[in-house]
Amino acid sequence: MTQDSSPIRPTDDEARALATGLMDDARFAAIGVLVDGAPMVSRVAFGRAPNGAPLILISSLSQHAKALRTDPAASLLVGEPGDKGDPLTHPRLTLQARAAFIDHDDPAYEEMAAHWLRDHPKAKLYIGFGDFHFALFSVTGAFLNGGFGQAFFLTPADLGLSEPS
Amino acid sequence: MTQDSSPIRPTDDEARALATGLMDDARFAAIGVLVDGAPMVSRVAFGRAPNGAPLILISSLSQHAKALRTDPAASLLVGEPGDKGDPLTHPRLTLQARAAFIDHDDPAYEEMAAHWLRDHPKAKLYIGFGDFHFALFSVTGAFLNGGFGQAFFLTPADLGLSEPS
Repeated sequence: MTQDSSPIRPTDDEARALATGLMDDARFAAIGVLVDGAPMVSRVAFGRAPNGAPLILISSLSQHAKALRTDPAASLLVGEPGDKGDPLTHPRLTLQARAAFIDHDDPAYEEMAAHWLRDHPKAKLYIGFGDFHFALFSVTGAFLNGGFGQAFFLTPADLGLSEPS
Repeated sequence: MTQDSSPIRPTDDEARALATGLMDDARFAAIGVLVDGAPMVSRVAFGRAPNGAPLILISSLSQHAKALRTDPAASLLVGEPGDKGDPLTHPRLTLQARAAFIDHDDPAYEEMAAHWLRDHPKAKLYIGFGDFHFALFSVTGAFLNGGFGQAFFLTPADLGLSEPS
């Protein structure tokens, strides 16, 4: 690689399948939000809504929840290296997205909670707490890093997601 | 926990030691940067400079490097859950920081590279490439989440780091 070459490759079905699989497998994510105009990264429980959209379950007391209520712009990183091998060669996916809160009194809440508990059974300990809410993400774009020299820009359609309205 | 309670606890030596240990042990991190005013999160190789400051080794071709050259505001998340247990109960540390690039022609580069290779031996494959550079972080504040109900705001001094100049 030289300074002038672009590391971005044309998106193919292999990249689409890898990216979708990273979202399917993820049970947590690193989330980036804006706090006073600066990025702030923290860890959140991650899953997918019944319609496939990225979903997180968070407490209103958390820094990221307060930030998202002020500015819904967010980024989510999924694809964890685990304990073996070089972590920088492990595939990971960055989602650029906007958050919408689903509170307890939302008609969609019950179905979302039941769906969430199937993949996150330990969440039954706190999912009923008054300060816990879902944030559902509308994805605007994504970046897949499949390891050195394996970078792709993806659209919501590449991930099987609807375009943001 | 109720909606009105603060989950932030007074910082103690146990919290300082836990946070410092998370930085010592980390070999990679999730970094948040600003791209067109929105947060973007990706994965980077992470270490510490000879003076203890957080340090990353990145390619100029990466999205995060381009973003940091435009705006040095960044956030770094360290503390990986590994493969066992509930990932949301695993301690993690968020650093709020500003990046300064250390390029190949910088007088500090050689010492930094030798120091880096001791903890990241596989980096010898690419550390000499012209597009790889260090970004050194000046930490302005930190947030430690030691698991549910174990949250702390930390200063640079709590982490054994100098205050930003």
